[in-house]
Amino acid sequence: MIETPYLLFLGDAPDQLAAKVAIGIRDWRPENAVGQYRMDGCKTDLGLTDMTLTEAREAGAKTLVIGVANRGGVISQEWKKVLVMALEEGFDLASGLHNLLRDEPDLVAVAEATGRKLHDVRVPEVEFPIANGIKRKGKRCLAVGTDCSVGKMYTAMAMDAEMRRRGMTSTFRATGQTGILITGDGVPLDAVVADFMAGSVEWLTPDNDDDHWDLIEGQGSLFHVSYSGVTMALIHGGQPDALILSHEPTRTHMRGLPTYQLPSLETLRDTALALGRVANPDCQVVGISVNTQHMSEDEASAYLAKVEAEMGLPATDPFRFGSGKLVDALAAM
Amino acid sequence: MIETPYLLFLGDAPDQLAAKVAIGIRDWRPENAVGQYRMDGCKTDLGLTDMTLTEAREAGAKTLVIGVANRGGVISQEWKKVLVMALEEGFDLASGLHNLLRDEPDLVAVAEATGRKLHDVRVPEVEFPIANGIKRKGKRCLAVGTDCSVGKMYTAMAMDAEMRRRGMTSTFRATGQTGILITGDGVPLDAVVADFMAGSVEWLTPDNDDDHWDLIEGQGSLFHVSYSGVTMALIHGGQPDALILSHEPTRTHMRGLPTYQLPSLETLRDTALALGRVANPDCQVVGISVNTQHMSEDEASAYLAKVEAEMGLPATDPFRFGSGKLVDALAAM
Repeated sequence: MIETPYLLFLGDAPDQLAAKVAIGIRDWRPENAVGQYRMDGCKTDLGLTDMTLTEAREAGAKTLVIGVANRGGVISQEWKKVLVMALEEGFDLASGLHNLLRDEPDLVAVAEATGRKLHDVRVPEVEFPIANGIKRKGKRCLAVGTDCSVGKMYTAMAMDAEMRRRGMTSTFRATGQTGILITGDGVPLDAVVADFMAGSVEWLTPDNDDDHWDLIEGQGSLFHVSYSGVTMALIHGGQPDALILSHEPTRTHMRGLPTYQLPSLETLRDTALALGRVANPDCQVVGISVNTQHMSEDEASAYLAKVEAEMGLPATDPFRFGSGKLVDALAAM
Repeated sequence: MIETPYLLFLGDAPDQLAAKVAIGIRDWRPENAVGQYRMDGCKTDLGLTDMTLTEAREAGAKTLVIGVANRGGVISQEWKKVLVMALEEGFDLASGLHNLLRDEPDLVAVAEATGRKLHDVRVPEVEFPIANGIKRKGKRCLAVGTDCSVGKMYTAMAMDAEMRRRGMTSTFRATGQTGILITGDGVPLDAVVADFMAGSVEWLTPDNDDDHWDLIEGQGSLFHVSYSGVTMALIHGGQPDALILSHEPTRTHMRGLPTYQLPSLETLRDTALALGRVANPDCQVVGISVNTQHMSEDEASAYLAKVEAEMGLPATDPFRFGSGKLVDALAAM
């Protein structure tokens, strides 16, 4: 659990793309973003107030989040100066970088001396149980994709935001590093040891009120041979009541696997539903989320209409047209 | 890679059951078992020559394998005396115990001083790649179960032995600690980090001769919610050409999951085959392995005949009736 709110560290980011994590926090949890910290040469601006460490502490920020990718996989000496000062100033640090804060002896020493925490969200911080398969109270929704990186996290985030707007009770449950940094907690599922994957998802989505929805961040794809085991653990550990099918229609092959074709939405529906019903006999496929970023608005609308007609399910691009149809489907259950 | 042959350490085993690993080595790789080492009070006898450490070294043994479960999850001081002497005598040590050799400072110190190795086969010793899904040469067979612990390892071991008898070329590929200790290498799949599971199976079953069969040790079950992700990684990383369905007909619920029913053999066949064809379009279900230990011989024969008729596939209990039918099926491919 990472203490919020945050000061977003943008370092010397060369462009907006490098600041993906910080942008996610600003967009999805603006209440967590007290301000931004930019170093000389930073080419990114999130439109937040630029703050010194002292100003951010006075404004209530508790954690400095590294919201930016580093260059060359090294935490530079320029960054270090700021990170050490932040610890001295009373901030915890949180990072999703490949190279870990905890592997930097100077940061470890200063964190120990100041009693601050170093959060490396790529590394599980909990000893997870083996999954017990016992049915939990409350409702759960999971997006499953025809491929990796088709918009599953965005879909869950957008549905969570829409449900809050409507006064429904919901929680986005992060299973990847970006989601964990955005919300402050979650399970870095791809870093969990095999035997405990499904158990970690059970742990992440515990008993809840009958009308509460967990929106579980999906990972991988049942049809992506590199990561399908992770997806399976989400389906069986998550016990979803509702599945959303996620798809990117212009993709010509599975991401990173040039000889693998994407499955059809029908195949994804049938495969995921049958596996989902092993853990939850009431599991249903309730809607389709399409990433139409490579289509014109007319193409996107026509494609969604075609998919709705063929599949008999509501279909939307949550980024372009909102997630209302998908939330309607959950509300109707 | 553990150096063979072994001296099998039976410690103070209270009964034969505690010596499961040692029995597996004796039965499946007798050429690896130079002798047995028993302490005072040992109630197990594998029928091997009792040897001192010096005698076993002279007979060529390179590794002392802890072939027995310990009591209370502690490596006792009595065991330690023998283990330390074995290191001094020139043995490596290999263990599948929950508590690791490498967590014992005295063993670590003596191993370093003597230049010997400590193998904890529950812990992966390799940095595995992410699976790339590229089709590999040679053939692969994988047993998939209606449940965990239905005889998948035994089936693969028995088929490997039968194929060697027939002069076919095959390799048993261990994916669990017992199999790794028996054969001297493999991947402890349940301890691999999620993102690398399928990659570790690709690593374990590399390109081979066109007529060579890898017999991959199965794990878990697609229908066991605690471990299904591990099974999925085996199916997609293993790219099996041939699937064997494994079943234990008297089981009343999934192992450890009292409210979960076993799937039918038909459901297992259809589910595993569809997923297998994602990674290998030529994948086929070729036979059925039934664990009939809780049936009389007549009941077992009748059950196997019924299954063969219903499924249209050869069915056998490899322990009771041999694995010949399953090997016939591979030979016919």
